[in-house]
Amino acid sequence: MSQTEHGGPSFERKVPEGDDHPRLVCTDCGFINYENPKIVVGAVVSWDEQILLCRRAIEPRQGYWTIPAGYMELHESAADGARREAWEEARARIEIDQLMAVYSIPRISQIQLIYRARLADPEFGPGPESTEVGLYRWPDIPWDDLAFPSVHWALNHFHDLRDEKAFAPRGNPPDASG
Amino acid sequence: MSQTEHGGPSFERKVPEGDDHPRLVCTDCGFINYENPKIVVGAVVSWDEQILLCRRAIEPRQGYWTIPAGYMELHESAADGARREAWEEARARIEIDQLMAVYSIPRISQIQLIYRARLADPEFGPGPESTEVGLYRWPDIPWDDLAFPSVHWALNHFHDLRDEKAFAPRGNPPDASG
Repeated sequence: MSQTEHGGPSFERKVPEGDDHPRLVCTDCGFINYENPKIVVGAVVSWDEQILLCRRAIEPRQGYWTIPAGYMELHESAADGARREAWEEARARIEIDQLMAVYSIPRISQIQLIYRARLADPEFGPGPESTEVGLYRWPDIPWDDLAFPSVHWALNHFHDLRDEKAFAPRGNPPDASG
Repeated sequence: MSQTEHGGPSFERKVPEGDDHPRLVCTDCGFINYENPKIVVGAVVSWDEQILLCRRAIEPRQGYWTIPAGYMELHESAADGARREAWEEARARIEIDQLMAVYSIPRISQIQLIYRARLADPEFGPGPESTEVGLYRWPDIPWDDLAFPSVHWALNHFHDLRDEKAFAPRGNPPDASG
């Protein structure tokens, strides 16, 4: 790969031979850096009537509240990723019920797979990416301090579906693209 | 990024500072090549009692049969990606009913989002990645010549769910990892 003045790689965007989409191609060696949508896995986790929320210790949206969720890693299943994130962010062991929502955020090329889950036991606490973790009753959720639009979507879908046993997973709310 | 003798980039696998997973890091400039799971989007598409199948013109599994499916591109929703693949591979316009299955294939770090869909009209034909496209009744499906295990899974889930209106999307069959 070619080096820029500051020593980083130098890519240009062009359509490789035999392809039909523009890709990042190194101007020197021709290495093709395929960019792919990223997968976020997470869960709305409940205990009795309460929902587990984490206050973010890191950017983006440091200090705001979220459900446990994060980028899926290589060589794990989506459900394993959601369980891992619950542990990393909230030191929570969760039991996944079912896939609750699939959100598409094309602006940032992100797909979110959000599960409905329960705490396996009522122990939890902040992991390295959270400053606080708590269980909130519906009216006590810090609605004005949620980190991302999709956290609103997931909490509302969870609430709408609370009496449903088998359902098609929800998508983005109408006209909402995140 | 550093160059190897054959001119390509030279990466080593190590845990960057502040991270907790090994990443591919350039031995020269420190560029971190984050690898992420890839998303395949596709659909089991029906017309009356028949299912749309494509014979692959390309590797892997050239000559074998598949449902229209492929890698999700940047800046599209999952459903748009499934519609695009149906057009690219089978020149088919489809109407998506609902998300039918989410398969995780950790060995190759792949997530598959498979929709249940109908042909919008009975016109279709091979796109550049297919040599043949056809509608098959259940007993006439070329079961011995399907391209991938997940094609079997999707066809069987479609068949199991044919009378279901709202359902939780299926995952991998028990003990099947692809």
